[in-house]
Amino acid sequence: MSVIDRLITALQVLPGIGPKSAQRMALYLLQRNREGGTSLSRVLEEAMLNVRQCDKCRNLTEQDLCTICRDPARDTSLLCIVESPADVLAFEQAGGFRGYYFVLHGKLSPLDGIGPEALGMDQLAVRIRDLCPEEVVLATNPTVEGEATAHYIAQSIKQPRDATNHVESTPKVSRIAHGVPLGGEIEYTDGGTLTHALQGRRDIN
Amino acid sequence: MSVIDRLITALQVLPGIGPKSAQRMALYLLQRNREGGTSLSRVLEEAMLNVRQCDKCRNLTEQDLCTICRDPARDTSLLCIVESPADVLAFEQAGGFRGYYFVLHGKLSPLDGIGPEALGMDQLAVRIRDLCPEEVVLATNPTVEGEATAHYIAQSIKQPRDATNHVESTPKVSRIAHGVPLGGEIEYTDGGTLTHALQGRRDIN
Repeated sequence: MSVIDRLITALQVLPGIGPKSAQRMALYLLQRNREGGTSLSRVLEEAMLNVRQCDKCRNLTEQDLCTICRDPARDTSLLCIVESPADVLAFEQAGGFRGYYFVLHGKLSPLDGIGPEALGMDQLAVRIRDLCPEEVVLATNPTVEGEATAHYIAQSIKQPRDATNHVESTPKVSRIAHGVPLGGEIEYTDGGTLTHALQGRRDIN
Repeated sequence: MSVIDRLITALQVLPGIGPKSAQRMALYLLQRNREGGTSLSRVLEEAMLNVRQCDKCRNLTEQDLCTICRDPARDTSLLCIVESPADVLAFEQAGGFRGYYFVLHGKLSPLDGIGPEALGMDQLAVRIRDLCPEEVVLATNPTVEGEATAHYIAQSIKQPRDATNHVESTPKVSRIAHGVPLGGEIEYTDGGTLTHALQGRRDIN
């Protein structure tokens, strides 16, 4: 198998890339952008080798602590719990949140054998004890498993199993709002979302 | 800039990949397929370093001669001239053609400064002299530049400038057919294609 064929095959590990796109990518790099291809190969190797989970928040990083956990200027009173590193990026790109994160790397899913240990609940307990946030924001996805995960985490924060971990004041626990997305149209919004939007209505003052 | 951010940036050298897709790819590889990412990085580096043009046909290969030119079982009476390595792959995947190829790596385009030298016309003359094909098939694209390129090559094969290169019998020169594509509908086919389809009609016997 020629190296070109192997490159076309290897490119298909990328999500959403089939044989035709892989072929186009391989030929583009070979014909027009060798430099870009070489630098991609180096960054890729480095990333695959060095990226690990942050000791504090389980976000992806190549150091012991991620850039967010290393940043002392952030708001220590808020801890946002998300399912994946992509969710951290989404919140960071949206701006507006200046607290810290904790990444579960999944959601409770008994059928797939994903229990509390896999989601790093012990690490989360340590993180909450060390950070002492005023509020923990549960930002798991609004799916059945995401809701169950949020519920489970809320319970375990309010009633720590281990009495030695017990602090005088447990943090307030909140859930992100669900409702009609900006730019969405009420006419085309599903019933579940509309119900949430009504239940979560707020006074205008 | 963290290695993850650099990976997301580097992935955007791939054609058709913007920031969002690059982020999805980077996180997918980091979270789910490190092995695939590592092997992609290695094949990519090897390909960028070693792939060159075939000495005979200018197709991409990592050796002196490409797999097609190295294959003695192919039909020496046919030489197909194409614009790019992607065209060779398209013909090979279609099957049916068992001759050799010659890759122009472009088309005549005076405005872009692409003249006959850039298309390897000297190499083509050598290839035709060595191979002595019975027929040269011009398979450049049916665009203005592709047609001009086909016309130019046809002329230069029929009337070689260099008398010393002159062989007794110059090969027959043909052009691929243009017409209604299979699965296409006449109703939605453009006028130029329909004109070609009518002009190129063949007897049914």
